[in-house]
Amino acid sequence: MKQDYYAVIFTSLLSETTEGYQETAIAMEKLAKQQPGFLGIESARDSLGITVSYWESLEAIKNWKANLDHLKVQETGKTKWYQWYKVRICKVERAYEFFADEF
Amino acid sequence: MKQDYYAVIFTSLLSETTEGYQETAIAMEKLAKQQPGFLGIESARDSLGITVSYWESLEAIKNWKANLDHLKVQETGKTKWYQWYKVRICKVERAYEFFADEF
Repeated sequence: MKQDYYAVIFTSLLSETTEGYQETAIAMEKLAKQQPGFLGIESARDSLGITVSYWESLEAIKNWKANLDHLKVQETGKTKWYQWYKVRICKVERAYEFFADEF
Repeated sequence: MKQDYYAVIFTSLLSETTEGYQETAIAMEKLAKQQPGFLGIESARDSLGITVSYWESLEAIKNWKANLDHLKVQETGKTKWYQWYKVRICKVERAYEFFADEF
């Protein structure tokens, strides 16, 4: 039987103060990957930014949210980088994948 | 009590044949918005594309997937536009939102 897993959908609009944002985003992605229960991360940004991270359990998500280095960055995000963001914590109920033949 | 809702996370890599893709993506977003049970859609693309659509129920998602115009486009997507994609159907369990004061 397939193990359930969870997705955190983080959708954001940056403010005009983006100094330090890019380096910190890279560092946080690296740190997330080291957390227990981390499964994967996908990111894209044009006007809107969407980052989806995948986790083994709600507890793993809670622990990552409470990570001290991550908490500091969340604070800077609120006071400096983000105009708006929304976080949705989701249970992945079903998934399917397509690969083109020629790749 | 808050009503449950669902998210479809569509992550994709385009092939090198992107002719007609952009117009069709816009048309499909417009069509999705007209479906019963549609709640919202968010998209971003740089190297990876992520589109998340939100729906009232699993039935609404199933109906949208089976929509005839959408089915034709899904077929073109597989034969032409996409190198890879993954679809995850998720139940949104919790959500929170941040707005900066100055905006």
